[in-house]
Amino acid sequence: MESVINTAHEIHFGELAKAALQQYLNQNQYSKIFLLVDENTNKHCLGPFSKIYTDQTERPIVIKTGEINKTISTCVDVWDALSNLGGDRKSILLNLGGGVVTDLGGFVASTFKRGIDFINVPTTLLAMVDASVGGKTGVDLGVLKNQVGVINQPKMVLIFPEFLETLEERQLKSGYAEMLKHGLIADKHYWNKLVQLNESDYKSHIQESILIKNGVVEQDPTEQGVRKKLNFGHTLGHAIESYFLEHPDKKTLLHGEAIAIGMILEGYLSHQLTGMSRIELEEIKKVFLNNYDKVSFTQEDINIIIDLLKHDKKNSHGNINFVLLEEIGSAITDVKVPFNLFKEAFAYYIE
Amino acid sequence: MESVINTAHEIHFGELAKAALQQYLNQNQYSKIFLLVDENTNKHCLGPFSKIYTDQTERPIVIKTGEINKTISTCVDVWDALSNLGGDRKSILLNLGGGVVTDLGGFVASTFKRGIDFINVPTTLLAMVDASVGGKTGVDLGVLKNQVGVINQPKMVLIFPEFLETLEERQLKSGYAEMLKHGLIADKHYWNKLVQLNESDYKSHIQESILIKNGVVEQDPTEQGVRKKLNFGHTLGHAIESYFLEHPDKKTLLHGEAIAIGMILEGYLSHQLTGMSRIELEEIKKVFLNNYDKVSFTQEDINIIIDLLKHDKKNSHGNINFVLLEEIGSAITDVKVPFNLFKEAFAYYIE
Repeated sequence: MESVINTAHEIHFGELAKAALQQYLNQNQYSKIFLLVDENTNKHCLGPFSKIYTDQTERPIVIKTGEINKTISTCVDVWDALSNLGGDRKSILLNLGGGVVTDLGGFVASTFKRGIDFINVPTTLLAMVDASVGGKTGVDLGVLKNQVGVINQPKMVLIFPEFLETLEERQLKSGYAEMLKHGLIADKHYWNKLVQLNESDYKSHIQESILIKNGVVEQDPTEQGVRKKLNFGHTLGHAIESYFLEHPDKKTLLHGEAIAIGMILEGYLSHQLTGMSRIELEEIKKVFLNNYDKVSFTQEDINIIIDLLKHDKKNSHGNINFVLLEEIGSAITDVKVPFNLFKEAFAYYIE
Repeated sequence: MESVINTAHEIHFGELAKAALQQYLNQNQYSKIFLLVDENTNKHCLGPFSKIYTDQTERPIVIKTGEINKTISTCVDVWDALSNLGGDRKSILLNLGGGVVTDLGGFVASTFKRGIDFINVPTTLLAMVDASVGGKTGVDLGVLKNQVGVINQPKMVLIFPEFLETLEERQLKSGYAEMLKHGLIADKHYWNKLVQLNESDYKSHIQESILIKNGVVEQDPTEQGVRKKLNFGHTLGHAIESYFLEHPDKKTLLHGEAIAIGMILEGYLSHQLTGMSRIELEEIKKVFLNNYDKVSFTQEDINIIIDLLKHDKKNSHGNINFVLLEEIGSAITDVKVPFNLFKEAFAYYIE
């Protein structure tokens, strides 16, 4: 697959990725090469890196798996490890894992000794199509997602589609939700293609999703305007995700599962406020419910989730701004939504 | 005093500063204005801000005083406070205090929701002449100073020289050490002026020090080359400061007191390695020992401090690079120093 070169960094695929990494490390004289992994990627994903081990390469720094560990406390462990292993300002960090590893590792690198270089090697479909481009790094603060972070680009992103073969179906579906979002906000034709895919076909569309996201991010790296479109489904989706994360008696929701719900809810808002047709709304609901089990919400759940919204980082001046759809393939930003519509949207999801 | 406008931010003095702040806040519609203070500045320095209190202004967020609190744990408290008080991406943080408050507050702002604006209002001479320009933010990691941070410019720096009137002599002297450094690395004429000053005259030279630092930083914001000159005295000075901070049985050293020692030691290295004359070395030692009490070091202290050096963030590839003087007023960077000279340098200080 062809490499994607944007202004900030390069994205390489498969065998080309291995060669590009080797060449990059040869050209740049890093004092040390650090590898950040979680318990899973430490076991299953080190293969492609066996050849890059050199005298400069330290043994992997391992963090615990899961969103619950995407915390400042884990950052302190990794900063300490880098420091104790003799990391200096000319070191580089390779983040090998899903979004938790790339988000947290990117933040740790961006702040260690006021910033060292890093490379992202996403191992999940979600991280490949979403976390791999855009430069958003960060960790959660209590239940509030991504409250602490910076925007900083990796030097390079490496995509090895073979990693997907070890992923569970649920993990694949989680990434698929972000791909569907790319169609919804930017390209109806892509949406129409995606909704007909089997799981085994997802990987041949990674590059198309990356190109859509990349196009948006390059226009607006710091999310002043058009980049906000990528947040479709995420305002309500994040609140739902945070709430389920905080309540261990609830089923754990993967990110894609949460934003799938968010996209149905915000699809409903789009029908009410920005002119999306009932037919397209029903189509969106049907596609997501065909792919993701319906989740139960009590009235109390819904009330608490709506309260959580006021902490969402996309708020400003106390208003809640949403990205909504005019139609499938076309999104608009900064739409203010009356509070009473949130309950209606949940009612539409539940019915 | 005239305002200094550099590419990244504006620096205003005294009455002009109050007007500039008011105008800036009027022009920029921040959703909330947060004030970060420590216990001291909360008591003594809120005066100039009485007029900027508006509906957007929250009550001050107070952190404990002292370098020992310049930690990630304090950052978590401030991130939580911002979050709980409804801070959003259009909020601004005013850091009112010494270097601990401006360094930590700058880091917290740079990372809260991936970055909000901040303004620095330094209240110590040290922070005015040093922390106020350059955009270095960060906190300590255990005993290692400034291991975690980013480089990010405040929107504005406000200098109120009246704050100096409440400072103890020891605090004033601590800032004076950085001013002397500016003379040593860049301007012999300025050094000659400074060494004849009384404490009451320091404040009329703040702007001259800021202009020297600003000139260096603008040439090299991310410290790839010439900016390293500002680290004169800091490689050994930081190691000494960290060591004394970690050992409560030792006298606490202020930053300026530690780098004053560092400048004598690195002055010795300059005489040995980069051609500075014995006469100038003796002059440097005399000026610093006239202003700062001589500190005792045992052989064990010295050995541990030299070990600490290998963690200094200015190291790269395991070498220790120093900024040394060719003569007073002229510094060169990236000088490698043989280990055995460190003990000689301490011996010269002690003798």
